[in-house]
Amino acid sequence: MINILMSGCNGKMGQVITRLASGSEELTIAAGYDLNNSKDNPYPVFTNIHQCDVKVDAIIDFSNPAALENILEFAVSRKIPVVMATTGLSDENIKVLEMASAEIPIFFSANMSLGVNLLLDIVKKASKILSDNFDIEIIEKHHNQKLDSPSGTALAIADAINLALEQKYEYTYDRHSVREKRSKREIGIHAVRGGTIVGEHSVIFAGNDEIIEIKHTATSKEIFAVGALRAAKFICGRKPGFYNMNDLISAE
Amino acid sequence: MINILMSGCNGKMGQVITRLASGSEELTIAAGYDLNNSKDNPYPVFTNIHQCDVKVDAIIDFSNPAALENILEFAVSRKIPVVMATTGLSDENIKVLEMASAEIPIFFSANMSLGVNLLLDIVKKASKILSDNFDIEIIEKHHNQKLDSPSGTALAIADAINLALEQKYEYTYDRHSVREKRSKREIGIHAVRGGTIVGEHSVIFAGNDEIIEIKHTATSKEIFAVGALRAAKFICGRKPGFYNMNDLISAE
Amino acid sequence: MINILMSGCNGKMGQVITRLASGSEELTIAAGYDLNNSKDNPYPVFTNIHQCDVKVDAIIDFSNPAALENILEFAVSRKIPVVMATTGLSDENIKVLEMASAEIPIFFSANMSLGVNLLLDIVKKASKILSDNFDIEIIEKHHNQKLDSPSGTALAIADAINLALEQKYEYTYDRHSVREKRSKREIGIHAVRGGTIVGEHSVIFAGNDEIIEIKHTATSKEIFAVGALRAAKFICGRKPGFYNMNDLISAE
Amino acid sequence: MINILMSGCNGKMGQVITRLASGSEELTIAAGYDLNNSKDNPYPVFTNIHQCDVKVDAIIDFSNPAALENILEFAVSRKIPVVMATTGLSDENIKVLEMASAEIPIFFSANMSLGVNLLLDIVKKASKILSDNFDIEIIEKHHNQKLDSPSGTALAIADAINLALEQKYEYTYDRHSVREKRSKREIGIHAVRGGTIVGEHSVIFAGNDEIIEIKHTATSKEIFAVGALRAAKFICGRKPGFYNMNDLISAE
Repeated sequence: MINILMSGCNGKMGQVITRLASGSEELTIAAGYDLNNSKDNPYPVFTNIHQCDVKVDAIIDFSNPAALENILEFAVSRKIPVVMATTGLSDENIKVLEMASAEIPIFFSANMSLGVNLLLDIVKKASKILSDNFDIEIIEKHHNQKLDSPSGTALAIADAINLALEQKYEYTYDRHSVREKRSKREIGIHAVRGGTIVGEHSVIFAGNDEIIEIKHTATSKEIFAVGALRAAKFICGRKPGFYNMNDLISAE
Repeated sequence: MINILMSGCNGKMGQVITRLASGSEELTIAAGYDLNNSKDNPYPVFTNIHQCDVKVDAIIDFSNPAALENILEFAVSRKIPVVMATTGLSDENIKVLEMASAEIPIFFSANMSLGVNLLLDIVKKASKILSDNFDIEIIEKHHNQKLDSPSGTALAIADAINLALEQKYEYTYDRHSVREKRSKREIGIHAVRGGTIVGEHSVIFAGNDEIIEIKHTATSKEIFAVGALRAAKFICGRKPGFYNMNDLISAE
Repeated sequence: MINILMSGCNGKMGQVITRLASGSEELTIAAGYDLNNSKDNPYPVFTNIHQCDVKVDAIIDFSNPAALENILEFAVSRKIPVVMATTGLSDENIKVLEMASAEIPIFFSANMSLGVNLLLDIVKKASKILSDNFDIEIIEKHHNQKLDSPSGTALAIADAINLALEQKYEYTYDRHSVREKRSKREIGIHAVRGGTIVGEHSVIFAGNDEIIEIKHTATSKEIFAVGALRAAKFICGRKPGFYNMNDLISAE
Repeated sequence: MINILMSGCNGKMGQVITRLASGSEELTIAAGYDLNNSKDNPYPVFTNIHQCDVKVDAIIDFSNPAALENILEFAVSRKIPVVMATTGLSDENIKVLEMASAEIPIFFSANMSLGVNLLLDIVKKASKILSDNFDIEIIEKHHNQKLDSPSGTALAIADAINLALEQKYEYTYDRHSVREKRSKREIGIHAVRGGTIVGEHSVIFAGNDEIIEIKHTATSKEIFAVGALRAAKFICGRKPGFYNMNDLISAE
């Protein structure tokens, strides 16, 4: 059983992880760290991480960038691996993380969703194998309040495909204004907006009487919690270093 | 059992209808008419329609516009209903049809697909009921050789929705160039192109934690044959008049 | 603007409706009724409905069966239409509702989802038009904690289709145990279970090179809130009577 | 440019490959071999393979098992790699192939579809990464004349998943007969039958507010032609050996 110190345990994601871990046979939350100690948890919660005297195998941090140095100091002093899932880190924060990774294993990923990272991995492979004979299109769907389009994830997918295919492709966002056949060297990207859709990304490989579609659907932000738990399992027992979701997926 | 005279029986669609009718318990092809008499059929084929002495209940025409007057003359003289499924008719051809419809029932539809016409009917109804609380988006997919986009059918769907909603909507083909929330008064239209996809049209109604999607997929042009047979069943026993797929769908 | 009295305004669904109504141009919550008055709302909340002195056009009730008689007494005395969205009503409760409907308009539906009811309506129509030439299959998806399968809604869909088609169909839940062609007189029903899927129902009409699919996806129970608001709009100004979602959909 | 000798060039698949190759920049059909020489082709066709004096880099065989020994004799004598795409080979035929693979590269796969084999590869990887937190379900769709269910490909997918997950899973074909929660150790397999659907296989990984779906759709048997051409490209320049689609996919 892997014992976790949950940093930010009384925040929204901390509580989601608490709930998910309670059903796990491999991981348990052994202690929590949060400045706010207003919630009941099935584990002791410390408002000062340095007072934590529970033996843990990994720290998951879902708090905020201000807590970063404190957590790393604690982790490095006790040689505990850290899964850094807090968002909004500055470039300087990330440098601090990288420095700490010389002494302990640090896991950090721009997107903590296991599913989205797996999608990226699969799509790169499929692109290499299929691109000669298949056309590639991306459809993403999000709620009607989203300002940007296409989504950052859709662009990350397109960029990953393009990188795998030696940057030979251009992105097409609109076809109604021209009257011509699709070029072999384009990736169509379509941004559907409506209702309260949390997020859906679909990559279509359309070939000769054959279509492969790879689709990821998220129905809440909880998906990052699953990724963080998976990362904790991955990072325990690793050598010091700077790991991300790509390493996790490649390791399988 | 409804007896059909299949005009253009040795053409591609005529042969498809022959095959489909052979499995039907309600319709049978009792005779064929085709200038080309090179194929074996399980019914007599006449190269001159006026020599046809088989008693039939309806004519399905899938030949070519040049044969129109000949067929109508025969049909009117014997009071036989006609399903006109030949494509490429001129405005003048259609006037001739309308005149004939004073004396016999004539069925004519711009799109003979039962499925596409049903989709149009369903989508109009759904739009009226849902438009207050749901956003409407259309995705169509076609092969990579198609020149125009969006497809004519996608535009027909959007126009049908807009007509049902008092012309209050604008069409959006591209969202990547602006950074703003979706307007309530837009219909997003997305044209996916790839491989050999024959044709897919999907209408999405996205609301508050709820999505309704209505999708039509065609995998060959044979779908017009099913529509023609269905029209023949519909038109038998009707009063003289000019009927279309909308009448057929409303009658159920 | 339609003024609503929200009964059960501090419950989960009452709060969802409060949020949804705040964005509406047609409806507003003018007053609330709840025994629990612990929440801040942008309208006055009464813990005794009879003390409500705000003029309202309709009542939406999302409280509990125990409050039923009190609410109806108030509504009948002031001739206010009621949307009864509380679940778990007994047969006796429903009789009381029906009696009240002699004096005021009452809206009551077993399933308050606008989308599911529209799906039922569409599918019945499509079945009548397509059943001669298309095979009908139902796929439903729910979370891995659901005990029953297929879902009640999937069975309601199948029953609605079968009723529309003169009860000629049988339901097939498993095909792996026999080696034979599909019968024309069967409806395949497939229950997918996994993860936290809230609910998806898809009806497939598969014909000759043509497929029509009609799909409803719910991502939370909030969908009943939209249905209740829609019902309130529908019921205002109606004659006394007992109305349901079917009436609402047929009226468009 | 890779020069191909197309064996069985006047058969259905031979003609499809001829058409596909005519649009390729990497492969060309330089010669054909077929007992039936009734068709016009843009390359010389030999009715006796030993008379073929065109220099080729690979042979694609889509003829019939009876021609096997003749083709191998020719290929071995000239050290030409062979893509064996003919179906219905006996165990003895396969032994003969394996023996020949000591001297020349032989490509042979039970299923020549690039897409289906890629699906298998992707699904195995996804299963390893996701199985702890996601439930796995398979939906396949085929036409209403298919006798067996689930399809052989659906079972091959389930077996590949189970092998990747140490055979810990059982297959569930029917849930309506029991009232219980889904087990973590089951793979649901659903066989949809209707119309003329050529073949669709979808694997669903349903997790905590996250779903990954990987879907393959075939709209004709032509998909095997694309796989054969891809195999020809792969096998040119390889050492003697017995290769299959798995090797091709792993090589990317």
